[in-house]
Formats: sequence, structure tokens, C-alpha cells
Amino acid sequence: MTETTLPELRYEPDPDAPRSALVYTFGGVAPVATVRPGQTVSTWTRDCYNGAVRSTSHLPSQVCDPRYLNPQTGPFWVEGAEPGDTVVVHFRSIRPREAWGVSSTVPFFGALTSTPRTATLQAALTERTWIYALDLEASTVRYEARDSGFTLDLPLDPMHGTVGVAPPLGEVRSSLAPGSWGGNMDTPEMRAGTTCYLGVNVPGALLSLGDGHARQGEGETCGVAVETTMDTVFTVELLKGVPTPWPRLESDDFLMSTGSARPLEDAFRISQADLVAWVSAGLDLSLLDAYQLVTQACLSPVANVVDVDYTCVAKLAKAYLPGMTAYGGVHQRLRAA
Amino acid sequence: MTETTLPELRYEPDPDAPRSALVYTFGGVAPVATVRPGQTVSTWTRDCYNGAVRSTSHLPSQVCDPRYLNPQTGPFWVEGAEPGDTVVVHFRSIRPREAWGVSSTVPFFGALTSTPRTATLQAALTERTWIYALDLEASTVRYEARDSGFTLDLPLDPMHGTVGVAPPLGEVRSSLAPGSWGGNMDTPEMRAGTTCYLGVNVPGALLSLGDGHARQGEGETCGVAVETTMDTVFTVELLKGVPTPWPRLESDDFLMSTGSARPLEDAFRISQADLVAWVSAGLDLSLLDAYQLVTQACLSPVANVVDVDYTCVAKLAKAYLPGMTAYGGVHQRLRAA
Amino acid sequence: MTETTLPELRYEPDPDAPRSALVYTFGGVAPVATVRPGQTVSTWTRDCYNGAVRSTSHLPSQVCDPRYLNPQTGPFWVEGAEPGDTVVVHFRSIRPREAWGVSSTVPFFGALTSTPRTATLQAALTERTWIYALDLEASTVRYEARDSGFTLDLPLDPMHGTVGVAPPLGEVRSSLAPGSWGGNMDTPEMRAGTTCYLGVNVPGALLSLGDGHARQGEGETCGVAVETTMDTVFTVELLKGVPTPWPRLESDDFLMSTGSARPLEDAFRISQADLVAWVSAGLDLSLLDAYQLVTQACLSPVANVVDVDYTCVAKLAKAYLPGMTAYGGVHQRLRAA
Amino acid sequence: MTETTLPELRYEPDPDAPRSALVYTFGGVAPVATVRPGQTVSTWTRDCYNGAVRSTSHLPSQVCDPRYLNPQTGPFWVEGAEPGDTVVVHFRSIRPREAWGVSSTVPFFGALTSTPRTATLQAALTERTWIYALDLEASTVRYEARDSGFTLDLPLDPMHGTVGVAPPLGEVRSSLAPGSWGGNMDTPEMRAGTTCYLGVNVPGALLSLGDGHARQGEGETCGVAVETTMDTVFTVELLKGVPTPWPRLESDDFLMSTGSARPLEDAFRISQADLVAWVSAGLDLSLLDAYQLVTQACLSPVANVVDVDYTCVAKLAKAYLPGMTAYGGVHQRLRAA
Repeated sequence: MTETTLPELRYEPDPDAPRSALVYTFGGVAPVATVRPGQTVSTWTRDCYNGAVRSTSHLPSQVCDPRYLNPQTGPFWVEGAEPGDTVVVHFRSIRPREAWGVSSTVPFFGALTSTPRTATLQAALTERTWIYALDLEASTVRYEARDSGFTLDLPLDPMHGTVGVAPPLGEVRSSLAPGSWGGNMDTPEMRAGTTCYLGVNVPGALLSLGDGHARQGEGETCGVAVETTMDTVFTVELLKGVPTPWPRLESDDFLMSTGSARPLEDAFRISQADLVAWVSAGLDLSLLDAYQLVTQACLSPVANVVDVDYTCVAKLAKAYLPGMTAYGGVHQRLRAA
Repeated sequence: MTETTLPELRYEPDPDAPRSALVYTFGGVAPVATVRPGQTVSTWTRDCYNGAVRSTSHLPSQVCDPRYLNPQTGPFWVEGAEPGDTVVVHFRSIRPREAWGVSSTVPFFGALTSTPRTATLQAALTERTWIYALDLEASTVRYEARDSGFTLDLPLDPMHGTVGVAPPLGEVRSSLAPGSWGGNMDTPEMRAGTTCYLGVNVPGALLSLGDGHARQGEGETCGVAVETTMDTVFTVELLKGVPTPWPRLESDDFLMSTGSARPLEDAFRISQADLVAWVSAGLDLSLLDAYQLVTQACLSPVANVVDVDYTCVAKLAKAYLPGMTAYGGVHQRLRAA
Repeated sequence: MTETTLPELRYEPDPDAPRSALVYTFGGVAPVATVRPGQTVSTWTRDCYNGAVRSTSHLPSQVCDPRYLNPQTGPFWVEGAEPGDTVVVHFRSIRPREAWGVSSTVPFFGALTSTPRTATLQAALTERTWIYALDLEASTVRYEARDSGFTLDLPLDPMHGTVGVAPPLGEVRSSLAPGSWGGNMDTPEMRAGTTCYLGVNVPGALLSLGDGHARQGEGETCGVAVETTMDTVFTVELLKGVPTPWPRLESDDFLMSTGSARPLEDAFRISQADLVAWVSAGLDLSLLDAYQLVTQACLSPVANVVDVDYTCVAKLAKAYLPGMTAYGGVHQRLRAA
Repeated sequence: MTETTLPELRYEPDPDAPRSALVYTFGGVAPVATVRPGQTVSTWTRDCYNGAVRSTSHLPSQVCDPRYLNPQTGPFWVEGAEPGDTVVVHFRSIRPREAWGVSSTVPFFGALTSTPRTATLQAALTERTWIYALDLEASTVRYEARDSGFTLDLPLDPMHGTVGVAPPLGEVRSSLAPGSWGGNMDTPEMRAGTTCYLGVNVPGALLSLGDGHARQGEGETCGVAVETTMDTVFTVELLKGVPTPWPRLESDDFLMSTGSARPLEDAFRISQADLVAWVSAGLDLSLLDAYQLVTQACLSPVANVVDVDYTCVAKLAKAYLPGMTAYGGVHQRLRAA
């Protein structure tokens, strides 16, 4: 399945026209390049503000155009991908391109504010921007309080908030939304060394990614992580005739199912039901036996409670899955390469 | 505050009348003993089925009486406790009394089934019981599939699913419910070495605990962990004039806020807002600066998505809280003792 | 079943000690009087603020004691009532005792504000009180804007927001909460001429009522209706061995099921599933046939989206239920009396 | 604004190629015709099954192709429509084309079943189809039970479940989803004599409609109304520079705001907040005064609890809005024409 001698594909969005060189939806846009199964792609992504918020005096509501938020690099046409297949994206490296990141509150966006959906008559929280210094050598992210002198170095933990393919049923979805196609899941598990499995809905799959985070907490509570541009290298594989109903991730130590929905318990249910089904198939357990095992063994970190839909992760240590090899061992092969 | 020379209080529920020796509500029942601040209590708790499910042929709907589910040991009258204070419960040891545990599906109970609230017209899932062998020396819990020969040793990780005090506003709540008074939160964080902070609502606080789990996954997906009886030793402290709006936990490495509500995003919001307020006070940060720090640094494991209300935990590493000492350092003092 | 010659029971809460003469929970309080099946009760209820908000200069957060909100008149011991029975409450008249009512915004309470559960970091909405003049002859309620000269006469439509019995499982619940025991459902359907069916959970049932509204919109959006004291006359009946899982109402024209839960869709599901079961039994239809009929024929007004749990009503015209007589025709008999 | 002498536009989808003559998304498809403001359109729509379910032996999961569900007629390019405008759709007549309608249960779809989002491990409900005879003269819809001989004539009340324009942010949404663009709201209020206001997101608006129901209950509980083909006549107007954030409806007697979201309380909040804002502007009331008025005066019927998002309607009698004329009186003008 893997042609190991394929040359790396370098894809460089036009740096002079970043707005038009990047895309803002999953589906509905023409592919920028073709990736062959087994091929490694090297590219970069812009931050969620599309570069508009660069100092603490920049407020998103003043400097951002809502049509150009959360830009995605891509989409890539995956050669041979057809509905019912699974596209495999193994992240080899995710590294900030610049030595700074940015976060902010955004009016009526985030978990601890009313929003246009959880509509109230209250005034918005104060809009404020934080700039983080990144030290790639020390692998730290420096938090600086705005209203006091407090500073703190947090571990750098680069990841992509948004990875996905075109959705089913002819839909085109904003890059702000997560769903069965992936998209804006905002889970810190999407880091280098991890493999992401995405079910294909349209020919060519139309894979895009963006929304690099130097780090984030689970839930992305205020709605915005430490946003930054990223240099990213990933390898794409294609599993023919293997469906994946909701995005799954695999690291060296864990299998992970995701679910995105509202209310949050439905995101939890989707992720847990998917993990139960995955474990049932992988260990040849009855569904009830797998339900029982997942009940006692899984970790359940929240991913986001701020986006169009909320995302939960259901996470099981491979140490508890003796004899189970996910997706024919593609993660191990890609990791070893 | 702590009288270190207080004798340990041994409280032994009548083993010949366990149903009537235990209680099924928070509030509404008379205290069984008085605990003085600083005193250590040694006692034991029964499993959530009240001992009725002891083999794979026992089905909860057939052998359990709904009036006697999730029995609690207590309540203990905490000497001097008044509304507006905080009761501190530091768990010194939580050890299974017997070498087995039990779990089951229960008709119309659990996260991956309809329930009397998430009401559907579908038939219930099959009711089934799993018995776990516990190896206290090896510190393992043995899962055995019912429909195949698969077995697996999981780590023993004893904890209490239910710890709480009497609720406010004169309410008496079933031991099946979690809330601001604690109760059936079902978080695996409630293990030995951890300190739990509970706001006092009535004179004497009326502290009870039960629902021992040999281990559980996050979310307690099928509704039932590895249930077992426990020998438990805990020290009680009292912080006068210090309110705690929602239960908090402290381990050597983490501060944790809990929230219990439906939908699950409200449990998330409560826990995160409480953590933001806690960190804001502890680091002398503005609320917005604390919101930002929590956004980038917290862990957000789900606790339960099966009980009367759902529970989320917001968890921040003390390593990210330089200079902050929670509740005057009571955890460290109790831990050192 | 009905003893038509029973004398009316007049119950007069002590007007000099209204706080202590009224109760604030369902369950947990001693009965004030015994009602025999078939007996008519005449009594009065205080408004939800317990009389503390009497002018536009009174703000609830300043003048109310949270322990004494939503006072209930009762509880009445229903002679012969045992768990598994149904208490029938037929409202003969509900009339405001005084010619004014009151509403207000309350900080962090209501549907269009964050709350302690839907927790945000935003400031509270402005607290404000509106006083309504009631014209009992014209049967109107006069709305007067606070920030302009606009006034409007709305129809008087007196009802009780809160009617219930003691809850199951030994619980005692605040009069602010609705649930399977009734309580603070806040549906405008609870008006004179209507019969309410409540399942009995404890001996004597312990029936209370309060929270009179001169009128309210569906959803009680700001959290507070046109609150007023009420003179109320109701007849109690008892149906032995007839369970009622969730409160039901019957008017001359409609059968109604209620459900109270969060999220609101669960309140909807409970009410609809109960109506499906009721119609299925009453018309001898299969469950699927009743599901289909309810789908095409029911009305589904929201009752409250502001209380501890939210309430939905599922409402089916009796005109669509040929041949079905609910609860043996007790509504018709009581109505005729 | 209105050119009263415009000829009626007759749009006839190709009856020989209905699948390809109809569309399945809002946005993403080319317009089929241009409508000028003031022009009346006469056309027809197919049922939600696209004609595939025509007898009780037809089961949707066997005879329907998920790509061709809920077909829409259109889209119509509204001449001159630009983002920020409001398209007005006044329904002159909505009449079933044929003398039958159809409903069914659909596996894992509906309010009283688990679904792919409210995921459980339970088996699906039985799939079953009901055929309704429509009597256009008597204006009735005949329900026939499948498991007994019970039949019932319900009032014919024809309406469109789905009316909408292209969504914002470049999205293309399935005709199964409701949202700020309209779409699959499934409210019985969308009947002849009613005017629907939709905010324009793209040039030409791209208006489509479909999903005719001979009648439905509020909530569309099993997920499927009495589905039927419709002959529909509507007049289109355009209000330049007048935004409408969420779909609104106006009948002779009511103003109505809609909200679509999950959980259902968010749909309620959106609809109520929109109605508060509408009334505030229309009566020149402060936001708090409008909040108060809506609290006491609105009706709040549920529309659907089964679609991709749930829909609530907030409904205020014009009798309570003296002096308020919505959208410059366009409804009255269109109604009079």
C-alpha cells in the first residue's frame, strides 16, 4: 500500500496572497495539489486570526474579517480516495514558524460567556489579547498576565486544532465547525507522532489542515488557544474499503475516538460508542463486553466546548488492548518510517 | 487548627443490619458519630448494590431494592461546622475489604442507553453482570469477558464515587445524585492521598461517603464502575468562615474543581468557572487573566455522564501555580502528618 | 370513591407568621391538615417572593431571604394515599386575593441570562421590578413599561406555578424545583377548571401548592411571572392502585403530559413518551401507532426554561381521542359537581 | 418596492427527472429561475422521501437513497438581493397535489429513539409506514392505525417544513438541517396566509422550499409528518438594507421568531431573544421592558426535536403590540393583494 520511495510533496501557499491562497471551508473548494498514498507532505499553516492579531492592542472584533477566520491549508486531493475509504494522516512534525503566539477573548465566543446560540441579554466580556513568547529551544510558551506582572512558562505542545476532509451529503462546512469529517475539533491530542483516521466522503477526500496551537488546555475554555503559524510535515495513507464513521486518532500509547455534537453529552456518547465498537471489533469482544471494558478503562478528556459543535475524546491505552492492531498496523509502519 | 493528638475515631456500621445501619440520602438523617476537626476516622463502606449482586447470575433489577442503592456510611457530625465553613476530607487510605468487585449493565441506566429522562421507546439493553477478581498484592483488577475467554488485568485504583455533606435549602438528596454538596460525583480523582473540600450547608455538615470503586474509567460509561466494599481512613478538618461553592479536590500535583449539572456543558462551565475564580484569587490575577491561563493550562476529564446530574473536573497542575497555596496549605499539612 | 357530602375544608395559614406558616420544600415537613378523598379545600397562597417585593423600588436580591422563596401552602395529608396511588387535584377556582401582581429580573436567574449552572464570567443583567395592576372585573393585568410610558392590558389568566407531592426515594426537594412529583412546573395550563394527576410517593401524599401567577407566557422567560397571592379552591380525589409516573393535566378539551428535566429536549422526550403511553393505553393502540398519532396531532408548548429543571407539556385534544376516558372519567365527574 | 403588475412566474421541475430537477442543499447549487421583487411564483414540491415511499410495504431504509432525501424546489435567484437584505416570502396557497400522504418511523431517527448523535447501543425501533388519505374537500387527513382498526380524521393543515436561503460563510447545508438561513425548521406555522422573513447571505439569496406536510404535531415527534407533494403559490418581496438574523414569521394574528440549535434550550433562547429585540424595536421599549413583556405574553410552541438542530418558535399576538408594524407593513400589503 505504501510506496516508500515517493518524493516529499512541498506545498507552499502564496505568502503574498495568504487570504486567497488559503481556504475557509471543508468541501466546496478546488484541490491545490495531489497527494499519493504513502507520500509525505511538507507545508505550513497560518494562525486562526489569519495573521491579523499581532499585538495586545489588536482586538479580533476590530482587525479580523469573519470571512477569513481559521484559514486552512489545502485541500489536498488524495489520489484514489473514494467514499467509504479511510484517509490516514500521520503527523511527523508540527513546529511553530515564528517565536510567538496569540490568544484573546472574543465577544460572545467561548465557554464562559453567552454566545449567539446560548443567547442572553448580557453585555459581552471585555475583549483582550495576550501575546505569548515561544522558546523553541527550551520548548516553552510564556504566559504574561495583562493586569499584573505575573508570568509563567508552560510547556510547548504544538498541535493542529483543525484537520479534516470534505463532509458528506454535498455539504460545505465552515472551518470553524467540527464534525464527522474532522474539522475544528481542537483536541491537544493532534500532535506530532499521532496518526489521524478520517472517513472519505467525496472522491479525492479533499484533506485540509490549519489552526496551529503552540498549546491549549482541554476544552479550549475561552475559545482561543495559543494560536500560531506552523511548519508541518505529515504522511498520507489510504485504506481502501475501510470506513471510519468519526475521526479517530492513534498515538504510540493510545487509541482515541472523537465525537462532536451538542449538547456535550452527545459528543461524549458518540466518542464512547465509537470506541466500544472499535474495541469490540479489535479484540473480538461482544458489544456488551466491550462496553464493560471501556467503562472501566477509558480516559475521557474534553476537547472543545466553544465551537459550532463540542468535541469529546474517548481514549484507551494500548496496554489494555493486547493483541489488537488498529487499521492493520499503519500507525506503527508510518511511525517506523 | 489541627489537634494532632486526637484519637482515631473508629466507626463500625452494624454488619448484621447493613441496610438500616447505612443511609441513602445526603441530609435528612441523624448523625452516627461526631468527628472533631483534626480527627482521623476509620470506617468501611458497602458497594453500590448493597451487597446484593455477588455473582454473574445476579441481575440488579432482580436482586436490588431501589430504596437501598448506593448506601453511605455516616453521616458524621463535624464538630463546630456551620454554614459558610468548609469541611476538609483528606483520604489517607482506601482499600478494598474483599478480593472481588462487580459491575453490570442496568436497564435504562448508563450513558449508552436511553433512560427515564432521555426517554425513548426502545427496548432496554441486555442486563448483565461482570465479576472482577482483585489482587491487592499485585494491585490489579481482573476483567473477564462474558461472551469470550478474553481476560485482562487493569491497575487497581481504589476511590470513592460518593462523598458529600447535607445540601442547602433544606433539601434531602438521594445518594445517587451529585451536586454542590458533593454526592455521587464518580470521579476517579477521589483516591487516597487526595483532599476533598466541601462547603457546609447545615450545622455539623453531616458528612457521608460510600460507593467504593476498585477502579473506573472517566465517565463511568455503562453507569457502574468496579464496585466493591472499602476500608477507608480519612482525616477531617474544618476551615471556619471559608466558603466552597462546589466540591474541590487537591492532590500533591493538582488543584481540581468539580461541577455537576445537565447538560454536560453546564457541568464543564461550573467546574471551569470555579477553577478560574480559585486561580484568580490564589495568584492574585484578574478574572480575565485567570480565564486565559486556565484556557491554556487545564485538563478537563469527564467524571460521570450517567448520574442524576453529570460531573466534569477542571484540573490544573500545581507546577503552573507558583506561589499559590490552596486553603492555607491544609493539604500539605495533612499529607505530611 | 367520591363522598359528595364532605364538608369543605378551610385551611388558613397564620397571616401573622406567614414565613413559618408556609413551607419551602416538597417532603420533609409535617402535614397541616388532612383531606379526605372527595373533599374540597379552600385556602390561599402567598406570592413567590413571600410578599417581600411590593413596589418597583424593591429588588429581590435586597429584600428577599433565599430560604423563604416560593412558599407553599400545605402540605395536606391525603387520607388513604399510599405509594402507587394517584392524587387528583381539581381546581375549582384560582383568584387573586389582591389587585396587584409583581415581576422582576433577578440576578443570574432566567432564560436570557447566565446562571450559576450555565456559568459565565459576565456581569448580571440589571435587576428591576415591575408592578402590575390587576382588574378582576375586567379580567385584565396591566403591564407598565419602566423606561417609557407604554402600558398594555393583558388578559388575566390565574394559575398555580407550583403544585406537588413529596418526592420518592426519601428526597426532600426545594419548592423551586419541578420533577416527577410536580413542584415548580410553571405551566399556564394549571388554571381553574383543570385537573392535575400526581403519583403518590409517600403515605398521605403530602400535597402542597403555591406560586400563583395572574398570568405568564410560555417558558416564563425572565424567570418570574405576574406573581400574586391567590384564593384557591380545589377538590382532591384519590385513585387507589393507579400509578402516574409524571404529572398529568386534564382540561375539558385536552389531555396533557408534563416532563421536567435538562436539557430541554429531555423534558420534551419525557412528556411525549408519557403522552404516547397514555394514548396507547387509552385507545388500545400499539405503542408505534400511538407514537404516530401523537406525532401528527399533539401541541407542545414549553412551560418553563428557568427553573432547576425545565418543563415541557405535550397536549392532545380530546376531540382526537374518541372513546378514550382518562382516569375513569374523574375529571368530568369533578367538573360536573 | 412592489411591482404589482408583474406576471406570475410558473416554475415546473422536470417531472421526468425529479431527482436531478430538485436540490438537496441550501447553497451550492445554481438557480433555476429569477424572481423579481413583488413577483408571485407558482410551483410544486415533492415529499421528503422523494416519492419513494408510497405504500405501507415501503420502508424508507429500503427504498430511499440518503442523497436524495428532502428534495427542494429551487433555488430561485431573487433579483437585487444582497447580503444584509431580507427576503420576504408570503404564502398564498399550499395545497396537496395528491390525495394521500405518508409517514413512517425511520431507524435511529426521531425524538423518542436514540440516534447517531444521541448514540446508544440499543436496537432501533421497528420501522413502519403509515399512509394517510387526504380529503381536500372535507379538509381532513385520515390516520389509520397499523395494529388495530382505529381510524381518525384530523384537520388538514398544509405547510412547508423547509423554506430557506443559502447560508453565510460559504457554507452549503443539507436540506435536512435548519438554521439561521431557514431550512428544515418543521414548524406548522409555515402555512398559507403566513409571511416568512429570511436574512440574505449571498447575492440572489437562493431561495428554495419543499417538505410539504398535510399536517404535523408540534415537535414532529417521530421525525416524519404527514408528508406529501404540494402545489404552492407564494409572493416574494425584498427589503433592501434590512437584516433578519433568524427566520421570522408573521400571520394576521401573530409575530413569530424562530431559533434552531441544540440543546433545545438554546433554540428557545435564540427565538426568545430575537422576539425581545424585535418587540423592543417595534414598540420603542427598552430591552428590559421588552424582556418583561415577552415573559408574560408569549407563546412558545416547539417546532422540531428531531432534525440536525432543534427548532423553537416564540410567538406574540399582534393584539398585544399596539402601534407596532413589522417590516413596514409588508405582510398586510401582501395579504391584501
